[in-house]
Amino acid sequence: MYRSHTCGELRIADKGKKVTLAGWVQKSRKLGGMTFIDLRDRYGITQLVVEADAAPALVETAASLGREYVIQVEGEVLERESKNPKMPTGEIEIKVLNINILNASSVPPFTIEENSDGGEDLRAKYRYLDLRRPPLQRALALRHRLAQEIRTYLDGQGFMEIETPYLIKSTPEGARDFVVPSRMNPGTFYALPQSPQTFKQLLMVAGYDRYFQIVRCFRDEDLRADRQPEFTQIDCEMSFVEQDDVLNTFEGMMRQMFKNAVGVDIPNPLPRMSWYEAMDKYGSDKPDIRFGMTINDVTSMVQGCGFGVFDNSAYVGAIAVPGCAEYTRKQLDELTEWVKRPQVGAAGLVYVKLNPDGSIKSSVDKFYTPEKLQAIADACGARTGDLLLLMCGDKRKTQTRLGVLRIEMGNRLGLRDPHVFAPLWIVDFPLLEWSDEDGRFYAMHHPFTAPKPEHEKWFYSDKKEDLERVCANAYDFVLNGTELGGGSIRIHNADMQKRMFEVLGIGPEEAEYKFGFIINAFKFGAPPHGGLAFGFDRVCALFGGQETIRDYIAFPKNNQGRDVMIDSPSKIDQVQMDELFLASTVKE
Amino acid sequence: MYRSHTCGELRIADKGKKVTLAGWVQKSRKLGGMTFIDLRDRYGITQLVVEADAAPALVETAASLGREYVIQVEGEVLERESKNPKMPTGEIEIKVLNINILNASSVPPFTIEENSDGGEDLRAKYRYLDLRRPPLQRALALRHRLAQEIRTYLDGQGFMEIETPYLIKSTPEGARDFVVPSRMNPGTFYALPQSPQTFKQLLMVAGYDRYFQIVRCFRDEDLRADRQPEFTQIDCEMSFVEQDDVLNTFEGMMRQMFKNAVGVDIPNPLPRMSWYEAMDKYGSDKPDIRFGMTINDVTSMVQGCGFGVFDNSAYVGAIAVPGCAEYTRKQLDELTEWVKRPQVGAAGLVYVKLNPDGSIKSSVDKFYTPEKLQAIADACGARTGDLLLLMCGDKRKTQTRLGVLRIEMGNRLGLRDPHVFAPLWIVDFPLLEWSDEDGRFYAMHHPFTAPKPEHEKWFYSDKKEDLERVCANAYDFVLNGTELGGGSIRIHNADMQKRMFEVLGIGPEEAEYKFGFIINAFKFGAPPHGGLAFGFDRVCALFGGQETIRDYIAFPKNNQGRDVMIDSPSKIDQVQMDELFLASTVKE
Repeated sequence: MYRSHTCGELRIADKGKKVTLAGWVQKSRKLGGMTFIDLRDRYGITQLVVEADAAPALVETAASLGREYVIQVEGEVLERESKNPKMPTGEIEIKVLNINILNASSVPPFTIEENSDGGEDLRAKYRYLDLRRPPLQRALALRHRLAQEIRTYLDGQGFMEIETPYLIKSTPEGARDFVVPSRMNPGTFYALPQSPQTFKQLLMVAGYDRYFQIVRCFRDEDLRADRQPEFTQIDCEMSFVEQDDVLNTFEGMMRQMFKNAVGVDIPNPLPRMSWYEAMDKYGSDKPDIRFGMTINDVTSMVQGCGFGVFDNSAYVGAIAVPGCAEYTRKQLDELTEWVKRPQVGAAGLVYVKLNPDGSIKSSVDKFYTPEKLQAIADACGARTGDLLLLMCGDKRKTQTRLGVLRIEMGNRLGLRDPHVFAPLWIVDFPLLEWSDEDGRFYAMHHPFTAPKPEHEKWFYSDKKEDLERVCANAYDFVLNGTELGGGSIRIHNADMQKRMFEVLGIGPEEAEYKFGFIINAFKFGAPPHGGLAFGFDRVCALFGGQETIRDYIAFPKNNQGRDVMIDSPSKIDQVQMDELFLASTVKE
Repeated sequence: MYRSHTCGELRIADKGKKVTLAGWVQKSRKLGGMTFIDLRDRYGITQLVVEADAAPALVETAASLGREYVIQVEGEVLERESKNPKMPTGEIEIKVLNINILNASSVPPFTIEENSDGGEDLRAKYRYLDLRRPPLQRALALRHRLAQEIRTYLDGQGFMEIETPYLIKSTPEGARDFVVPSRMNPGTFYALPQSPQTFKQLLMVAGYDRYFQIVRCFRDEDLRADRQPEFTQIDCEMSFVEQDDVLNTFEGMMRQMFKNAVGVDIPNPLPRMSWYEAMDKYGSDKPDIRFGMTINDVTSMVQGCGFGVFDNSAYVGAIAVPGCAEYTRKQLDELTEWVKRPQVGAAGLVYVKLNPDGSIKSSVDKFYTPEKLQAIADACGARTGDLLLLMCGDKRKTQTRLGVLRIEMGNRLGLRDPHVFAPLWIVDFPLLEWSDEDGRFYAMHHPFTAPKPEHEKWFYSDKKEDLERVCANAYDFVLNGTELGGGSIRIHNADMQKRMFEVLGIGPEEAEYKFGFIINAFKFGAPPHGGLAFGFDRVCALFGGQETIRDYIAFPKNNQGRDVMIDSPSKIDQVQMDELFLASTVKE
């Protein structure tokens, strides 16, 4: 070893010890004749001192050190005169007796500190330097800790981690596959998995009872901000279980992760909210329940007062924004423009101000008496000083828009502290979604998701309205307005699966072509089973109190799917193309 | 839950309990009026009894059960009349009160037992059924256990598991890459990693100090038996370390894995053998030291006695095969033919029998007196009853052939018990290999491996013979004749790296083209570092006492790189090809 201790290890109790440290020069400064050097490694920073009366060669070496030089020093642990209580090593310093320069460093292209002065592109190109910064070191340390916690918990619950293949088969369903040409089987391709869904269900058929895997998945989608072409999933499946068993098992996992990695106790049990309630109250199937400001259905209250816009709407909803009655005309106009942007898509916004002086002012004073407005405000739980915001239109669309507005107002009011954690389960999703364009049902989750047992009577009905009210045995884990994972109890019964294909308008040949191979496996004794998957990158980011996942991935790709550090993807040799029996059709 | 207990859980202490079990029907038999059913899950087998006087419907259901039906039963735990001490649940049985058929099963295409009657191809096609067999369940359970042990150990040693990308850049070095066409960047490709070597070195540059990952790697090689296009590696790297630190850390890991997963204590410390000793004594850089029969250099003893073949050979070596003096002429001829096969490549074989009666008989009696032969035998440690086998020729080639013969004789004599474990480190590999064809040196490991500090003087010499004796700071972990892993201390000094490229005849432009990106990273303060990687599939197989890895991979590919279960690789849609700007050049 090049060191006797790390740079985060020495304390006042080590006073007088002869030690050897190794690490990077964080900074170096002269004071009087003395040189002070901050030496950094993953574990911390230790202050080194080269005294004015040290050997000239040593003083000279100390003076020659640049930022990010890698050095090894021998010295003695001294008690500091002026202690730094903010640093774990702040009570000591090392009197340097010898310096060995292990490696010099060019001047880094940006500062390697808590906050860097480097732009995003530059830091991406020199990712290995950006990764030296404390926030990224903490991010990857948290990721490691969480992965360990997950594995320890699931191992303790009898789960086996089983590796599934990466070179699998392309299926024409869902998102686009990344494919891998096969040299040994000319003209054919493997696909990289979008998830190990099929394999984990096969492992249940194979009797493995409890499976998990922290596994890379791939989707060749057009990348939105904060989407990566490769991402990591915590993938799980259990046999002989009902929905409650899955939820209890995995909220236990989350509880342990929060406790051991972040030091936070989450409620036991976690709240469970039906999809219908989430949509009605939060306008979202991933509600942020850190704050209230829930949506109220005021349709019946506002109609029949002569305001045609409301009278002709299927639904009118309102949120009461606390303390915002003093919004100016300008602010309200800005908010109206904001909700009219295509990203939100509202036609407009009606406001009611509950002024601190007790008066009421609204944009619809022409149609509603102050008493009526007060009654509406009361129904929404609004209090003096609050601002009531109303939208109207199609019920679900309007709720969704109000949900987006609610989040925006939550942000503006600072109600969304990333270090407050409010997880919950969303349950009772509709099994099926009707598409007006295609005139058919689609599976809301996937065609292997089972209906709730108590809704089976409707599942076998021929009436559209019966089928529409069938709830699925499906569930999402939601944290602070983000869906971190989800899953379902699967259909294990051949007749029910047949019925599902029938409902979805998938004929026997099509079913065989698309799903034949798993249907076949299910003929040989498939147990009842269900599971779920969490997006691990996002889990890490949210546990770390961040919204973006990029800092939680060691070597992420940019929005064009490029790794600018290694300059990939790139052209390959003609020899490689020939061996793969491939020609490019790109016009040069 | 569909069960109150698993099928491996109930004991005599549970007598009288009302329980619910779920699992697969292993077998069912009638005895008198009673039906006995073996119910199986991952955890074990429990015997069920449907009594003769049970309700007729229950008796009928029990009679209808076929192999691999999935059932749920309610019943009472009874003490068995005839106990089965071989089964953990052998003291009890369940008196069945109710049977719920959860899923019927078609008759499986082969028996699902310890040893199946199914052929390899059939079992591969129905892998999900083969995976139900106990040996495969044990294999994957061992794999899971080992992965957990590795992670727990390395986490305890301060290692962080950091995920590196799967979509990287193709490099024209080494084995062939699998490539992935990029749709968003037309005409370009990602490559799947052959190992995370570059990334782990960058993580050391980035200051992560101790990294590991259990990670999938990919090589598009022509597949030999027991090679997989995708395989799993335990990949590790450490900073501020010397060779001893790496070896001590990872033999500690292996010690814990052997202790906790297999219950075996391996020596502390492990033996370390130089590459030269391994070649001289075992004719292999991965010696099986479970047995002796080492190779002896008898060149000087056998030359000058008029036997031209030996006199004209650079090297003559011998092994003493214990107890085989009674080999017949036919057996010796067969053995001679065996070593002359191209796989071994020997020109012939000389034998000396040390007969039990004290006489000596050899194939070269014409040239050597019995006394001379006895002296040679003594030098080889041979005893009465042993068979001495000699080969001659080029030193390393002859040693290698004797090494192959030694393993063969070890197999024939039953000296290679797969449940005996004899691990060791091979160290002091030559840094460079001279190629006569190309008239240049190649790196034996890779161009980033450092020479041993005490050999640096030769490394900077211009003489070929000096360069040839430079040993590398490289090491392999060998178990029972198989290399399970290896690694090296890397060069971190720019001047030494420059010298290495010079020795290898790699010019500055070529170095920049091939390795530019890592050389550049090394300019910003690379710490001294080193690491290693283990082949996890093979680790699992050897720990399980098997030579083939296929049973230790849940869904392996066959020798043509095909997954016959999912029928992959396969053709993809023209739409997909078009989106990727690719055309196939395969003639239909």
